[in-house]
Amino acid sequence: MTDKKLIYLDNNATTKVDEKVLEVMLPYFSRYYGNPSSIYEFGGKNQRAIKEARETIKDFFGARSSKEIFFTASGSESANMAIRGILNADKSKNHLITTKVEHACVLNLYKQLEKEGYNVTYIGVNSVGELNTEELYAAVNEKTALVSCMYANNETGIIFPVEEIAQKVKSINKDTKVYVDAVQAAGKIKLNVQNTDIDMMGISGHKFHAPKGIGSLYVKSSVLLSPLVIGGHQENGKRAGTENVPYIIGLAKAAELAQDALPYEATKVKELRDKLEKGILSKIYNARLNSSAYNRVPNTTNIGFEYIEGELILLNLDDIGICASSGSACTSGSLDPSHVLKAMGVPFTALHGSIRFSLSRYTTEEEINYTIEKMPEVVNKLTALSPFQKELKELKERKGIV
Amino acid sequence: MTDKKLIYLDNNATTKVDEKVLEVMLPYFSRYYGNPSSIYEFGGKNQRAIKEARETIKDFFGARSSKEIFFTASGSESANMAIRGILNADKSKNHLITTKVEHACVLNLYKQLEKEGYNVTYIGVNSVGELNTEELYAAVNEKTALVSCMYANNETGIIFPVEEIAQKVKSINKDTKVYVDAVQAAGKIKLNVQNTDIDMMGISGHKFHAPKGIGSLYVKSSVLLSPLVIGGHQENGKRAGTENVPYIIGLAKAAELAQDALPYEATKVKELRDKLEKGILSKIYNARLNSSAYNRVPNTTNIGFEYIEGELILLNLDDIGICASSGSACTSGSLDPSHVLKAMGVPFTALHGSIRFSLSRYTTEEEINYTIEKMPEVVNKLTALSPFQKELKELKERKGIV
Repeated sequence: MTDKKLIYLDNNATTKVDEKVLEVMLPYFSRYYGNPSSIYEFGGKNQRAIKEARETIKDFFGARSSKEIFFTASGSESANMAIRGILNADKSKNHLITTKVEHACVLNLYKQLEKEGYNVTYIGVNSVGELNTEELYAAVNEKTALVSCMYANNETGIIFPVEEIAQKVKSINKDTKVYVDAVQAAGKIKLNVQNTDIDMMGISGHKFHAPKGIGSLYVKSSVLLSPLVIGGHQENGKRAGTENVPYIIGLAKAAELAQDALPYEATKVKELRDKLEKGILSKIYNARLNSSAYNRVPNTTNIGFEYIEGELILLNLDDIGICASSGSACTSGSLDPSHVLKAMGVPFTALHGSIRFSLSRYTTEEEINYTIEKMPEVVNKLTALSPFQKELKELKERKGIV
Repeated sequence: MTDKKLIYLDNNATTKVDEKVLEVMLPYFSRYYGNPSSIYEFGGKNQRAIKEARETIKDFFGARSSKEIFFTASGSESANMAIRGILNADKSKNHLITTKVEHACVLNLYKQLEKEGYNVTYIGVNSVGELNTEELYAAVNEKTALVSCMYANNETGIIFPVEEIAQKVKSINKDTKVYVDAVQAAGKIKLNVQNTDIDMMGISGHKFHAPKGIGSLYVKSSVLLSPLVIGGHQENGKRAGTENVPYIIGLAKAAELAQDALPYEATKVKELRDKLEKGILSKIYNARLNSSAYNRVPNTTNIGFEYIEGELILLNLDDIGICASSGSACTSGSLDPSHVLKAMGVPFTALHGSIRFSLSRYTTEEEINYTIEKMPEVVNKLTALSPFQKELKELKERKGIV
């Protein structure tokens, strides 16, 4: 592949590995390659490096003890380990609560759990993507084993009040466990599990400039969890397999850098996201913001382009070097419209033409300017080809009036 | 850590990442970092790279189709995915067969399965480490869901006749599935699952110069497997989580290099291993070979030093820059003697003083000469401190006579 122009606005799908992350990982491939479990110093050195990394990740979660931190291979594994782990450790309750807008990895797991005999309540969101928390609290009962709720939605960026949710859930049933999928929050807003009622929280490194293939799971020390991968003594017996030393080191560095960059995310990244959003919404009459403008992670915007096809927009953007997406990468290939936007009741006229732009601290003002400049060309071209010309004309007039 | 002398003779614990492997991985961290599931070319490129890697791993297994190849994060995950996957897909049978000398990841999983209600038959080995296959065949019955057997033992290097075992097992019960843990065979002897009755085979990259944190599982196309990590569509829906692109590329390169190096393993590595073994056995009167000298992978030798402590030998070797082990790294930290050597009936006089040396294609003649030179010094020093002087004197005289 020749390195053509690349404006990467799909950082909720994955991110570039930070060069500083790569740098700290490198010595652990071919130089300090000992097995951390080995008795000799060449292994012990790596055991200590993992210990340090675990401390860093503890701070990143805002956890009390590094014993509450487990390394996994992905956000999906973190979720599976947490949810299966809780349910296998205590089979006395058969009711589960989650949301209609969770990531596929969580939703598909719940579908499987339903087949295995669990009752699952799926909580909806309102038209701007905010969780119906009262509906959630009303669903908690004495049989509720687990509530699992994402921290920030991957498609809209909307932040759910997970601390409040955990507290309320526990006040209704103190034995109900709470899992928070923080994959899209980590690196964008501050995590701080300490002094909350959250029992478990999962993150994925490749969403904040660590490599793909490393994640972490926070498990409050009082919570009993059955392991998903059984075998050796690694990860305190909770997750077998020789430790991925380079990636663990890399994850810690990425967490450190992300933590340091949080103020930049909250200001500059947000500013660029807002500029992009306003630029598109002001220049394209059939564009609409698909979520609340408030209470979002700073890097994400989800915009619907009415009466045109999202896939076509993406392919046209790809041609001019802009990477964006129509939903989770994990569900791409499917022609179904986003389950998140459907749950929000986004009108079908915009459902198929919705695009998520997600920025990172690497996104530049030039890239945003270029995107704002190019989007009207791309959208107008496709709009002209839409079979819904009558509706588009009405929409244009309506917008003109308002 | 200053880079002191390092003679790494613990390649069954883990290996150095080959520089050529690192080289092919590097562009996928910070340059070609797209999510393989993304619709745009920057992602699609990585999807194609994974496809190519899967072809290479298919050839490494000697499998029929790349659809039979799944990437995992470790040998442990491969084993858990295979064993749990089979049992969850078909719950009609409750009997399992494995060996007493499997790796901890498999044995601990079977202990857990016993708690869950499965009956497990553990097959023993003879005094030189060879599997009691007749005992295994006699144990297969109509309730046997699975036979799981390692290809080569991690502590002794002894190769088990897995193709014959699979064939015989199927001739007794065609519905019994066969899982082969090939973690210690991959890269040492040729794998060739095609035209065998083996249903599943697991490998781990870091045992053949790929990084820690990547493994693979072969699953014959006719075999139905429930996923362990449920979520996105990755790995054909069998293992959710964004693909670890750099490691998948690295695993394929490592497999390619290992495949090319098989003749070198079978000749030069074996030659060096035999030289080391003969050197030690001829120079140290209280040394004994803990396994058959035949039918082993070319890189491994397990030698018992009677009446002294293995841990002390290892620490003394560490002081002079030699890395070896007393068993699986995954069970180190435990003071119990090796379950493999116990199953072989190694006398307790040698059980606690047994050392595994495992070479790689990076091991040099100089390193072997140095080890042969130093071992008598280390062992004689410890032997002089042993409380079993009477027994040692008798042993010495007996050896002198024979």
